[in-house]
Amino acid sequence: MNFYVMTLFPEQFDAVLSSSILKRAIEKGLIKVELIDIRDFSGNKHNKVDDYTYGGGAGMLMAAPPVYNCYLYIIEKYGLKNPRTVYLTPQGSVFDQKKAKDLALGQDIILLCGHYEGIDERVLTRIVTDYISIGDFVLTGGELPAMTVIDAVSRLVPGVLSNETSADTESFNGNLLEYPQYTRPEEFMGEKVPEVLLSGHHANIEKWRREQSVIRTAQRRPDLLEKAELTEKELELAGKYISR
Amino acid sequence: MNFYVMTLFPEQFDAVLSSSILKRAIEKGLIKVELIDIRDFSGNKHNKVDDYTYGGGAGMLMAAPPVYNCYLYIIEKYGLKNPRTVYLTPQGSVFDQKKAKDLALGQDIILLCGHYEGIDERVLTRIVTDYISIGDFVLTGGELPAMTVIDAVSRLVPGVLSNETSADTESFNGNLLEYPQYTRPEEFMGEKVPEVLLSGHHANIEKWRREQSVIRTAQRRPDLLEKAELTEKELELAGKYISR
Repeated sequence: MNFYVMTLFPEQFDAVLSSSILKRAIEKGLIKVELIDIRDFSGNKHNKVDDYTYGGGAGMLMAAPPVYNCYLYIIEKYGLKNPRTVYLTPQGSVFDQKKAKDLALGQDIILLCGHYEGIDERVLTRIVTDYISIGDFVLTGGELPAMTVIDAVSRLVPGVLSNETSADTESFNGNLLEYPQYTRPEEFMGEKVPEVLLSGHHANIEKWRREQSVIRTAQRRPDLLEKAELTEKELELAGKYISR
Repeated sequence: MNFYVMTLFPEQFDAVLSSSILKRAIEKGLIKVELIDIRDFSGNKHNKVDDYTYGGGAGMLMAAPPVYNCYLYIIEKYGLKNPRTVYLTPQGSVFDQKKAKDLALGQDIILLCGHYEGIDERVLTRIVTDYISIGDFVLTGGELPAMTVIDAVSRLVPGVLSNETSADTESFNGNLLEYPQYTRPEEFMGEKVPEVLLSGHHANIEKWRREQSVIRTAQRRPDLLEKAELTEKELELAGKYISR
């Protein structure tokens, strides 16, 4: 899986790419991340890539030519044919685990990080295949969202996670939040681990965890309950805890 | 505004904190970010902070004592009184611009970054005031979500953004996505900037932009339309473009 990141701030990616799981995946050759500085394609000696907005409005826009020339450079240098090209923008569809799985099916992904007020529409319509927002909040640029997409998608590439840790990618499959978890010591500040978890009785443990998941989802994410397949008894339980 | 980050990977924050806007805000003394390594509070010579899950299950959990001792250290060292303590977790409420504004009202925020399969429930119930998820996808740890929260909240601290750039934080206030934008050159690959934007006729420009926002929201985020206050004519326009 190859990521090509178009950004004005390539140095922001260094620390995250050197994090444990991504670093190992890169070393094993399972993923590759190329950082390409859009400013190298400014076409002027001041390295200026932004300009005022036609029709008025606060802030500056990234101009079309540097973005397009940067894109052409990537396509040619790496010999890409119809790569997915993702623009990280608040004006996109909301990223989720399903979208991560969809992106993980491909081989090459170009990630375009915006800055300032955005990017000239004419280059976007020519190169972007996916407009993705990581949520309804405003950030300084597309770099953190791009890192987020790289992290979420890389975890789904076969071999990146060991079998033991891969189970957690199931978090959103059941549309219920995960139950509370406990580890040693058995007693912490006078509070013991719930007895059922020490019982060794697997059916009871499963039952307790399922109930706790229902309660927690009702409290924190009632929007997910609709999609979860609950029994009548579970629906009643959820009703008692739902946040209003 | 002070952020105190509890993490196993403090070095991951360096690059992002040295990014333009956050760096300036830190230099001006408008925000402060302290990174505290949870591993320093392991209490054992192997610096081990994780252990197996009671009741079975894949993966390791972060144990309660190191997290709690790290928390106490922060509270005491910086003399904090009832700080907001945010745990970044897929089992949280979804972060949005409203939540960012809410967090920006405070003075001190502790951000707790999880790793492995999560953190022992007993320390969470004792210290966490806000469970926040940045979206329905699975990441390696809480570091990218913490950086995302720091970025989104910092932008709302008075003085961090210049007046000119602050307008973009309004993106989500109208519940419509932003319209397409254009900058020089006037013609790019044979495509001209829409004529209305060159007209200087402000009312027409506003009308065009509003229509484009309605169309784009219908295409990419039909879920937002319900909350937007649309005229009957706009509803009809949206209906033509809504994605199914």
